[in-house]
Amino acid sequence: MQATRIERLTSSLVRDILAVATRPGMISFAGGLPAEEGLFRPQDAGIDLNAFPDNLWQYGMSEGEPALREWVAQRASGMGLECSPEQVLILSGSQQGIDLVAKLLVDESTDILVESPAYLAALQVFRLFGARMHDIRQDEEGAMPSALAAAPQARFAYFTPTFQNPTGRCATPERRAELAGLCDRRGLTVFEDDPYRDLSFDAPPPAPLVSHLAKSRWIYQGSFSKTLSPGLRLGYLVAHPDLITPLVRLKQAADLHTNRLSQFIVLLALQQGLVERHVASNLPLYRERRDAMHAVLQEKLAGEASWVKPSGGLFFWLQLQRKIDGMALLQEALERGLAFMPGDPFFAGQPEYPALRLNFSHSTPEEIRRGVAILAELLGR
Amino acid sequence: MQATRIERLTSSLVRDILAVATRPGMISFAGGLPAEEGLFRPQDAGIDLNAFPDNLWQYGMSEGEPALREWVAQRASGMGLECSPEQVLILSGSQQGIDLVAKLLVDESTDILVESPAYLAALQVFRLFGARMHDIRQDEEGAMPSALAAAPQARFAYFTPTFQNPTGRCATPERRAELAGLCDRRGLTVFEDDPYRDLSFDAPPPAPLVSHLAKSRWIYQGSFSKTLSPGLRLGYLVAHPDLITPLVRLKQAADLHTNRLSQFIVLLALQQGLVERHVASNLPLYRERRDAMHAVLQEKLAGEASWVKPSGGLFFWLQLQRKIDGMALLQEALERGLAFMPGDPFFAGQPEYPALRLNFSHSTPEEIRRGVAILAELLGR
Repeated sequence: MQATRIERLTSSLVRDILAVATRPGMISFAGGLPAEEGLFRPQDAGIDLNAFPDNLWQYGMSEGEPALREWVAQRASGMGLECSPEQVLILSGSQQGIDLVAKLLVDESTDILVESPAYLAALQVFRLFGARMHDIRQDEEGAMPSALAAAPQARFAYFTPTFQNPTGRCATPERRAELAGLCDRRGLTVFEDDPYRDLSFDAPPPAPLVSHLAKSRWIYQGSFSKTLSPGLRLGYLVAHPDLITPLVRLKQAADLHTNRLSQFIVLLALQQGLVERHVASNLPLYRERRDAMHAVLQEKLAGEASWVKPSGGLFFWLQLQRKIDGMALLQEALERGLAFMPGDPFFAGQPEYPALRLNFSHSTPEEIRRGVAILAELLGR
Repeated sequence: MQATRIERLTSSLVRDILAVATRPGMISFAGGLPAEEGLFRPQDAGIDLNAFPDNLWQYGMSEGEPALREWVAQRASGMGLECSPEQVLILSGSQQGIDLVAKLLVDESTDILVESPAYLAALQVFRLFGARMHDIRQDEEGAMPSALAAAPQARFAYFTPTFQNPTGRCATPERRAELAGLCDRRGLTVFEDDPYRDLSFDAPPPAPLVSHLAKSRWIYQGSFSKTLSPGLRLGYLVAHPDLITPLVRLKQAADLHTNRLSQFIVLLALQQGLVERHVASNLPLYRERRDAMHAVLQEKLAGEASWVKPSGGLFFWLQLQRKIDGMALLQEALERGLAFMPGDPFFAGQPEYPALRLNFSHSTPEEIRRGVAILAELLGR
């Protein structure tokens, strides 16, 4: 006998796709992987890993290293999200924040609101904990206020307003303020997931949605996986004063505390200004790949699909003109050496429209051209 | 509104004690910390951290690094627990294994069996998920077969048969076989927590309890926190073939995968034979501290308390002759510069008897003598 929630552990579809996608020779638009060339390697950046302080090997604090919490609080405050270091919790990657927030807020049959579509692995966690998810439709600027206003009563709303996974969309300041105002009026707690903020190719992104809240409680989280390296498994959250204490206790129950080596590496990188420099040096690479994918999509798929050219993040989201069987298409593509993500799993409920998610960060412009050509052939048939 | 489980998030008593216990000048018997002198510092052991392979900074596998999974499978098989690397999951410390097993097996009001007393932070997690915990009484050899036989129907039993936290007790091979036989007959899944196995001062400990099972499903977990360093946050579990797939998916949902730096460090240490050497060099230190605490307890507290001299692990468990208010005693002790853990929170239900848990690994023999003297004075009054 297992727990009831295990029946809701969704199939290993994504795991299977990613396993195939990493085969040598495969062009993969499937994952959400940073460019290999863009990974932060501390040694190459002049950080001497052998200089780890002695006390780092003992148990640490569940909340995280104090200096890192201070940096996060300063960054958040600098973005208009006034907070103190006591409101910060260092995470073993921001996926962990989703687990902790689900533990904090989701009972069996708890109503929650999610963008349609939304980050797949967040939907999986909310579903695992038994949430009843209600879709908020999106337009080109992200979640639509009219959809939020019409949504049923719910315990919280999950938003990724900045270069969303999977759509790549970024809400304007006005849209954020409008959504925040609605959440305030409804007394709706807001969980904002913000891992892509620094991967901004055209202009600095607007302040977080939660910085516009006047009354509602909130959790905001960020990550070092996209700006530095995913292997570090390091993220953070900042929470409303009412919520931080139970979140820290949940963190302690989950894994006692976050790896101290990673915390130390990131702290050194921050103190030495290496993070900003690293991100800045990566942007041309990402921009080039984004532009390459946009160009070849325009050339090959303008009749078959529509998309918003993302101004940040890692993904193109193709809305297809015709209904397709995404899994059958993927199967054909894999045989031709191309992997991508079918759109259906990104919808909490019934898919709104046929779609594909294409990652552009992990392939060279040449691979991008070849991959999109394969896709166009398959879709054109 | 928060999830119902948050009402069951037990108070921050332990966090508060540990916060006070780390104050400079405090003699702390409170935590479960390895000796500072005994921490594994890779640089000092000749591991060049700057030689991390380049691919380590990208996302890794949820299951863990293949070579490390192989080592765990070999170790387990060498202890009589036949298994393949596919049954191994690398954890962000073994506290995470408790969270994953609770997700796998515990619904609201699920009946489970726990030793009385048992590891505090495991009880907290099981309670958080809504388990109805039933005590299995212990004698000097650990959980009593008669108590197990008389326990109500349950979904699983949680055992720490080797140098248990808090009692330090170690079950004989016969006791393990008898308990396993009972679990087989009852169809009871077994979760064995084994972080202290290598801290064995007198003789090698018996094979794991789960290696005696013939039919029941099982999860077995171990840790590198006590043998190497807690700051690494690295543990592992091995599970019955029926259980490993959902556990890997739960791991992915919890934090995607374990920190790859720590996995790399431990793998190198294993390959170079540094782990065995490190543990062997630590044992005299731990034995000396164990012996020092035993001697001064005999001298100062023979009339007030009884205990089993632990042949491994990190703790003495004092059963007190007289009823005490553990929290009031702790308060007085803290004022005198001594911290310890009151026994009550280690009992899932009503405490069976008054008790204290004393850690001996983190204090010098001199501190141990001073600390026990303070305790004796307070108890003697």
